[in-house]
Amino acid sequence: MKDLVDLPATLHQLNNQRPIKSKRNRWNVAISEFARLTHNPIRAIVEGLNIQPNPSKPLIALSIGDPTTFGNLKPSQETVDAVRQALEDGSGNGYAPANGHLEAREAVARYVQHQGPVTAADVILCSGCSSALDLCISVLGGPGRNMLVPKPGFSIYRTLAEGFGIECRTYDLLPERNWEADLVQLEQLIDEQTCAMVVTNPGNPCGSVFPRAHLEAIVDIAERHFVPIIADEIYEHFVFPGQEFHAVSTLSQRVPVLSCGGLTKRFLVPGWRMGWIIVHDRDGVFGEVRRGLANLSVRILGSNTLVQRALPAILDNTPNDFFDDLVATLHRHAELAYKGIKQIRGLNPIMPGGAMYMMVGIDVEHFPEFETDLRFVEALVAEQSVFCLPGQCFEYPNYFRLVLTVPEEMIVEAVKRLEEFCEQHYKLDNDLLLQQQNGLLNQMTQLLEIKLYVQ
Amino acid sequence: MKDLVDLPATLHQLNNQRPIKSKRNRWNVAISEFARLTHNPIRAIVEGLNIQPNPSKPLIALSIGDPTTFGNLKPSQETVDAVRQALEDGSGNGYAPANGHLEAREAVARYVQHQGPVTAADVILCSGCSSALDLCISVLGGPGRNMLVPKPGFSIYRTLAEGFGIECRTYDLLPERNWEADLVQLEQLIDEQTCAMVVTNPGNPCGSVFPRAHLEAIVDIAERHFVPIIADEIYEHFVFPGQEFHAVSTLSQRVPVLSCGGLTKRFLVPGWRMGWIIVHDRDGVFGEVRRGLANLSVRILGSNTLVQRALPAILDNTPNDFFDDLVATLHRHAELAYKGIKQIRGLNPIMPGGAMYMMVGIDVEHFPEFETDLRFVEALVAEQSVFCLPGQCFEYPNYFRLVLTVPEEMIVEAVKRLEEFCEQHYKLDNDLLLQQQNGLLNQMTQLLEIKLYVQ
Repeated sequence: MKDLVDLPATLHQLNNQRPIKSKRNRWNVAISEFARLTHNPIRAIVEGLNIQPNPSKPLIALSIGDPTTFGNLKPSQETVDAVRQALEDGSGNGYAPANGHLEAREAVARYVQHQGPVTAADVILCSGCSSALDLCISVLGGPGRNMLVPKPGFSIYRTLAEGFGIECRTYDLLPERNWEADLVQLEQLIDEQTCAMVVTNPGNPCGSVFPRAHLEAIVDIAERHFVPIIADEIYEHFVFPGQEFHAVSTLSQRVPVLSCGGLTKRFLVPGWRMGWIIVHDRDGVFGEVRRGLANLSVRILGSNTLVQRALPAILDNTPNDFFDDLVATLHRHAELAYKGIKQIRGLNPIMPGGAMYMMVGIDVEHFPEFETDLRFVEALVAEQSVFCLPGQCFEYPNYFRLVLTVPEEMIVEAVKRLEEFCEQHYKLDNDLLLQQQNGLLNQMTQLLEIKLYVQ
Repeated sequence: MKDLVDLPATLHQLNNQRPIKSKRNRWNVAISEFARLTHNPIRAIVEGLNIQPNPSKPLIALSIGDPTTFGNLKPSQETVDAVRQALEDGSGNGYAPANGHLEAREAVARYVQHQGPVTAADVILCSGCSSALDLCISVLGGPGRNMLVPKPGFSIYRTLAEGFGIECRTYDLLPERNWEADLVQLEQLIDEQTCAMVVTNPGNPCGSVFPRAHLEAIVDIAERHFVPIIADEIYEHFVFPGQEFHAVSTLSQRVPVLSCGGLTKRFLVPGWRMGWIIVHDRDGVFGEVRRGLANLSVRILGSNTLVQRALPAILDNTPNDFFDDLVATLHRHAELAYKGIKQIRGLNPIMPGGAMYMMVGIDVEHFPEFETDLRFVEALVAEQSVFCLPGQCFEYPNYFRLVLTVPEEMIVEAVKRLEEFCEQHYKLDNDLLLQQQNGLLNQMTQLLEIKLYVQ
C-alpha cells in the first residue's frame, strides 16, 4: 500500500492550487459517425408525410408490421403459461450467459432441425431478430465492405449496416416473376469487398416465398463467389397452401449461413424481443465468425431471461393448430385483399405466397394528380383514412405495402375505400388523350392568334 | 411495369449461359475489427484460470455479480405481480417505440426525480444497463477518441468502447482514500479527443460511495474541460447507513450528463434486461446526442415489452421496506465480511459504503508462494473451494473482489476458509528474513566451498 504521508490533504485542494488550463473553451459535443449514419429510412419518410385522416372516417392503419396491434391475433395459451411459470418459480430473474441459457439454446436447436443438424453450440439468443441481424451484419461487415440486400426490402439491413460504413448494394426482386431475385444483377454486384448476401425468405414487404430452384440458384451464386449468406428467416413456415418454405442452410453443404429467426411473428410476441442466430458453419470457415459473435453477444448480455426460461415450453408445447390457424387467417386475408384490389382500376396487387404483407402496384400514368407514391398515400389517408406504407419506404416507388394481420372487416372496408378513392382519381387513357389534344388545340389556337397578331 | 417479352425464360438459365468468373477462389471469411476488438477481459482472465475446487469442500462462489444466484434475494411481490398483469392482459406483446412505451418512460421519469427535472422525453429504455452504456459510449465516442474510466473498474466500459476504436484511459481510484478518484491524474488525462468521463457511483468492484464534495470536484473538472459525463448509477440508492448517494446530474447546471440505470440490481431482476438512459441536457448542448441516441435505439427496437408494460406498477408500487431490507442485508454482510477478514493476517479488506461488493487487498510480500493475485485465487479455490474474482479482472492486481449478495452463512464460512488458507500460506517478515539469511548462508557456504576447492 502507498504511504499516505506524502499525499496532500485532499487531491482537490492540490488541484485547485495548480489549475490546468482547459483545452476547450466551450461545449461542443459531437456525435459519432456510427450514431449519425445509423438511421431508419422508414421513419424519415413517414415523418415527412402529411398524414391527416379524414375526420369522418375512422383510420384503418395497414402500415404497422405488428400482428398484435388490433388484438385479433394473440399468442397461444401455452406461450403465456410458459412465461407465467418462469415468473412464478423465479427461475428467470438472474443473468444468463451472453449467448443464452443452455436449455433455451437446446430448445431452439430442436425447433430448427429443418435447417439441418443444429446443436445448442450453434445457437445465439438475441434481443429480438433485429438484434440477431445486427450481430450478423456487424461481425461480417465493416468500413469499405459491401453487402447485397434485396429491393424492395426491409429497411433494417440498411439501418444496421450504414452505421458501420458498410455499403448496401441492392439487387432487384422482380414483380413480374413473383418477386424472384434478378440473378444476373445479383451476381454482377459481387466484388472482392462483398462480405455477405442477405436473403429474406419469406419476404418483407413482398410476402414472396422463393421456390426451391430459385433459392438454389441464389445459393449457387454465393457458392461460386464464396460469399456467406445472412438468411433472414423470421417468417419461416409462414407459407400459404401450395407454397413450400426451404431453409437456405439446407441447399448447400459448402455455403456458410447465418440464419436469423425468433418468436416475434410466428408466436405473435414481437415485443418480447426473443430472436436467435443459427450458425451453419461449413468445415470451420465460420470459426472466426463464431468467436466474433461470442464477442459481440457480451455487448448486451442476452435477451430477457423470463422468455429464455419459458422458451423450451413455448417451442415444445405450442400446438400445430395454432400455427395452422394463423397461416389460414393470413391466407384468407391475402385472398380477400387480392381479389378485391385486383378489381380496382389502376391498382395491381401481387398475391403473396406467405408472410403477412402484400405489395400493390400503382398505375401512376392513370393517376396524374399524384406525382409519387408518397402523394398517393397522403391523399388516400386524407380522403379515405386508409394508411399504407408507400413503396419508397422499401426503396420501391409506385407501390404501397399493406399488412394482412389486421381484422378481416378492416381489410374488407379498406378495399372498399381504396376502390372509391381510385374511381375518383383514375384517369382513362381516353381522358388523358383528350387532355393532351386539348392542350395541343390550345397551343395551336395560341399560335394562330400570335400569327394573326403578327400579321 | 417492364415488358416480359425480352426477358429469357429463366434468369438462372441466362446466368448459366454466361458464367461469371469468381473473384475469390476459396472461403476466407474475415470478421470485422468491431467484432475482433469487442472483448470481455474478465472472461479472458477467468477462462485462463485453473479453477478446480477442493472436492471435499462445497464451492462458495463469491465471484458472480448476480444477486439472484442463490435464491436468498428475490424480487418484490409487486414486481412479479406487475409482470403477471401485463402477461395476462396481453398489453405487453406488441412492439414498443424504439425508445420505449410512453407510460413506461413517464414512470421512469417520476422514479428518477432525485436526478433533477426529468420528463419522458429525456428517457430511453434499453435492453439492460449494459445496453444503456453501449448507446452512451457509441453515441459519444469513435475511432481516435478517448474516454476516461475508473481503475479498478467494471470491464464493460472497455468491452463496449474498444470495438469502436475508442481508447480507454484509466484514472486511479485510491484505496487509501476509500476509493476516491485521483483528481490530479483524472484532469491530466483529458485532451482534445476526450469524448466522455465515466463516473461509477456507487462503484463496482469497490462498493465505494463518493461523498458530495468529491463528486463536485469531479464534476468541476468536467465543467472546466467541457467533457460530458456518463454516470453509471446502476447502484443508485445502494448506500449503507451514514453514506449518502448524490446523482452526478444534480451537481452542476452546466455539465451535460447521461445517467444509466435500470431495474437490474435494486429490483433483483438482472435477467429481465430493463435499463435506461436519462439525458440531462444543458442548454441544448446534447441536441445532437439526443438525435444520435434516437438513431441508435432503432438497432434493437427496445427492451422487452412485458417488463415495459409492468414498469409503472413496479416503480410505483414496490414499497420502501423492500429496498431498506435489501440494503440492510448487504450492509450486514459487508460488516460481517469486513470484520472477519480484517482479522486475517495478510489481507486488507476495504469497507464498502454501498453497492454489493468488497475489495480485499493481498499483502503479496507475505505470500511469496503466489506470484500474482491470479495464483492466489487459484490456490484458494483448489484448497478451500472459495472463488473470488482476482483484481486483474478490474485492472487492479493484488486484490480480489467478493460479492456480498450470497447467503449469510456462505460469508461466514468463506471468511473461515479464507482465514485457514492465509494462516497456511502467510509468511512472517521474520520467516522471510530467515529464508533470506538461509539463502545468504547457503551462498556463503558455496563460496567458501569453491574457495576451498580452488585453493
